[in-house]
Amino acid sequence: MSPPSVGEYLSKRDAFINDERSLRREHARLNALSDAEAQADTVVRQIRADEAKTIWTDDNENMPHVFPGMEFLTSRDLIVKTKLFNILAKMPKGALLHAHLDAMVNVRTLLRLALQHPAFHIRVPASLTAASLKTTLPEVRPRPKAEWSALSSLRDAAAGEWVPLQQARANFDPALGGPEGFDDWVVGHLTINPAEAYGTHKTTDKIWEKFANTFRVASGLIRYAPIWYPYIREFFRTSIDDGISYIEVRINFGYKTMFNAEGYDVVPAREWVRDFERALRDTQQELKDQGRQDVFHGARIIYTTIRMYTPDEMEWYLDECLALKQEFPDIIAGFDLVGHEDSLHPLIHYIQPLLRFRARQAELGLDIPFIFHAGETLGDGTPADVNLYDAILLGTKRIGHGFSLAKHPKLMEICKERGIAVEMCPISNEILRLTSSMPMHPLPIIVNHGIPVALCSDDPAVFGNMGLSYDYFQVLVASEVTGLTTLGQIARDSLEFSTLDAEAKGKALAAWEKRWQEFCNEVAALGK
Amino acid sequence: MSPPSVGEYLSKRDAFINDERSLRREHARLNALSDAEAQADTVVRQIRADEAKTIWTDDNENMPHVFPGMEFLTSRDLIVKTKLFNILAKMPKGALLHAHLDAMVNVRTLLRLALQHPAFHIRVPASLTAASLKTTLPEVRPRPKAEWSALSSLRDAAAGEWVPLQQARANFDPALGGPEGFDDWVVGHLTINPAEAYGTHKTTDKIWEKFANTFRVASGLIRYAPIWYPYIREFFRTSIDDGISYIEVRINFGYKTMFNAEGYDVVPAREWVRDFERALRDTQQELKDQGRQDVFHGARIIYTTIRMYTPDEMEWYLDECLALKQEFPDIIAGFDLVGHEDSLHPLIHYIQPLLRFRARQAELGLDIPFIFHAGETLGDGTPADVNLYDAILLGTKRIGHGFSLAKHPKLMEICKERGIAVEMCPISNEILRLTSSMPMHPLPIIVNHGIPVALCSDDPAVFGNMGLSYDYFQVLVASEVTGLTTLGQIARDSLEFSTLDAEAKGKALAAWEKRWQEFCNEVAALGK
Repeated sequence: MSPPSVGEYLSKRDAFINDERSLRREHARLNALSDAEAQADTVVRQIRADEAKTIWTDDNENMPHVFPGMEFLTSRDLIVKTKLFNILAKMPKGALLHAHLDAMVNVRTLLRLALQHPAFHIRVPASLTAASLKTTLPEVRPRPKAEWSALSSLRDAAAGEWVPLQQARANFDPALGGPEGFDDWVVGHLTINPAEAYGTHKTTDKIWEKFANTFRVASGLIRYAPIWYPYIREFFRTSIDDGISYIEVRINFGYKTMFNAEGYDVVPAREWVRDFERALRDTQQELKDQGRQDVFHGARIIYTTIRMYTPDEMEWYLDECLALKQEFPDIIAGFDLVGHEDSLHPLIHYIQPLLRFRARQAELGLDIPFIFHAGETLGDGTPADVNLYDAILLGTKRIGHGFSLAKHPKLMEICKERGIAVEMCPISNEILRLTSSMPMHPLPIIVNHGIPVALCSDDPAVFGNMGLSYDYFQVLVASEVTGLTTLGQIARDSLEFSTLDAEAKGKALAAWEKRWQEFCNEVAALGK
Repeated sequence: MSPPSVGEYLSKRDAFINDERSLRREHARLNALSDAEAQADTVVRQIRADEAKTIWTDDNENMPHVFPGMEFLTSRDLIVKTKLFNILAKMPKGALLHAHLDAMVNVRTLLRLALQHPAFHIRVPASLTAASLKTTLPEVRPRPKAEWSALSSLRDAAAGEWVPLQQARANFDPALGGPEGFDDWVVGHLTINPAEAYGTHKTTDKIWEKFANTFRVASGLIRYAPIWYPYIREFFRTSIDDGISYIEVRINFGYKTMFNAEGYDVVPAREWVRDFERALRDTQQELKDQGRQDVFHGARIIYTTIRMYTPDEMEWYLDECLALKQEFPDIIAGFDLVGHEDSLHPLIHYIQPLLRFRARQAELGLDIPFIFHAGETLGDGTPADVNLYDAILLGTKRIGHGFSLAKHPKLMEICKERGIAVEMCPISNEILRLTSSMPMHPLPIIVNHGIPVALCSDDPAVFGNMGLSYDYFQVLVASEVTGLTTLGQIARDSLEFSTLDAEAKGKALAAWEKRWQEFCNEVAALGK
């Protein structure tokens, strides 16, 4: 018997590999790329291969374990120097679909914004020392004028006594670094640093403690009406600069009210939404004035509250969400629950109010899709993992994170059939220790199965992955199958699986396609 | 519109979850468990839950990040103290299907065996110092009597000069720890320690350098006919003690010859196989004499060589494999290629000789299934990952590792349909840094898809996971879906997907079932 020819084997093999790859969402396009797209894809693959050998090597001082897709907090400085990153920074990203408003603006900018307002006060539970700085969380909030403090330094304050933020900074103990030391201290409690993520806090449970604390500090700064509007403007501005053309942002309404200009905690949610809408309108007007209206197609809010309340308390939030949807039908895009899935309540805990919420929508003629966080966990069969079943049974429009989705063959099929996109947040997952690096991340599993994915930054102010360029970068360097065409498909899908109505979506997609071709032209030119 | 009742939702939910879980191979059994099996499963779940709270806590000195399924090398001492491990140590494991002979005996035992033979000599490339000990690999091999050295210490030897092993040990520099320091030095080069796996070498590429070195040292000790037989006896004995009842072990025939008793490197592969067969026969006779023949159903060899040769060189090994199969039809179970998939040649490199090998088998009326390593990688679309396509196209009977299989929806379907079991080696994967811990390991993905799995130890002498109890332990603590019933199914499948013929398999399975029921009785009794 003569052996089958190698030629026969190779053609069978090509068909076999192609058959599986055809499941991927960009596959059909691969044979219909414009010349520029094909060339741009080749250029990017070549640069990736070159940089794998020149940048991601062991020659970096103080970085003993360097590889593409390595820990983000350690490699960020290296990433920004790569050609690949600088290309991706210019890529039109489509929509940002999974992001929490409290962590969307560079923390130094936020602090600078707050320092313009004398109403802000700060306090600490015990006097600060060099040793206690790292573990002492600052508490910041605006105070009514009648209660403004005359103290001029945290050193003069008794434990728990409020000090004006401006004075606390100006007169911060020189032994602790003076005003710059103050900034570093506050910033340290608004962000996660490499030593925490990869050293002292390196399990998911532990880093979540630190992570949750950053929101305690940040919300004290953001929940102030005079900050709220410029903060949102800044968020929109930087997102647009990164090539993001549409946003669905999660806002946590758990606090029920924020502080007004006079320092009273009385501003209800409808005022927040109204200011959000104003920030959006003003942004769009500004772009129009510049003749750039096509770069940004709007922003909407996914109403969220925290998965720590009782089911009865949840009813209040659901009712508020219904009321906001009635008042702001174009702004309220969906409903979600936030907070650490592994330790807080699973969706099933709220099944009664959630079912009632759906019935009330039908009565009121509203449509507020669930867009649930689910499966942001390493568990297999734990309540956080089981959230995936409930999210899908409850008809979730997309899945937030879905990190454990790969463990669910039937749910993956359903996502594919019904077009339930997964909002994947690779850098967030890595810093929160669900994965140690990008090559270990399950994203390629989801992509290879043909499930639509939107890449998301989650909490970039905390993680340092502002915009979407970093997440696209990490995904691109961790797979040989993935190329620029894949990233284009992910960007396209982020618009496709948004809550935009058909007309608005069509417009946003057409504008994106135009920018995409221009971008590919530019990248292709690099290869010439 | 009234909301659907919670009751309705819950029954729909149960059916939904059950529908997906029904894909798992143990699912059908869950409704047909004996009382003892059901109780044993409950007892194990209870102990796991208790120990998650009492053992896997932060109260352990010098272990700042403790959790179930954490890094094996750090947690081994904790694991052996758990009730759960002590239960699993008694579990009948079924077959060991993925293990490399060079790493199957405790390295201290191996060293002790070698020290009985004056023919063994040792040398180092430069004189040893406290500082160089860690990085200086000992080279050990038998020497013909005429070339025995008169030197009595490594200190007296010039660089590269041979010293008798016994003398080198007896007179090892007291400043380096004397004879015990010698043992520790050699053992350090035969094993991977936590500092290497999780510190100095913590990427897959780097730890593979160390890993490959352990085989250089080990093969010098094992490739000596007077060691070979007792080594294999020891391997069988300890495996049987761990509850393993059948073995398919990979032997690396890359060296072509081993040393005879006189210290000449002339013993051909057929002699190795003959001695293997003798060790097996003697083991079985001994068990029979003890009335324990039912605990062990044989051992076979998967012929392997290293994926670094040229295709022409490969022909020689394939021919040898055919010849060995003709001479030892019951012993030679299959063919495989070994070595670091990420850096050495992929299967496609050998497509011509491999296709010819299959044709030759047909001519000769032989059946030597391929049992290929494939996908032992973090890559997505890299040559090591693409090995999975070739392994399956070439008709592999099982897949060794298949770590990246989860990235292949079509290949997973094929594995399920055709009954291609995956030999998963969770502890090996973790130490070789494909995963940082068990909760990040893709095994639950494979199990939830209903693909048959055999748990394997791979290279336990290097990793310290002797037997299969450790691997079963790590898998059990990292999933809430998995229970004792799952482990039973994995053990059963290890026999089911072995190369045993129908009759032998039937006998082995029947014996296993009997032991399983006894084991469950014992475990169930713990709950009373």
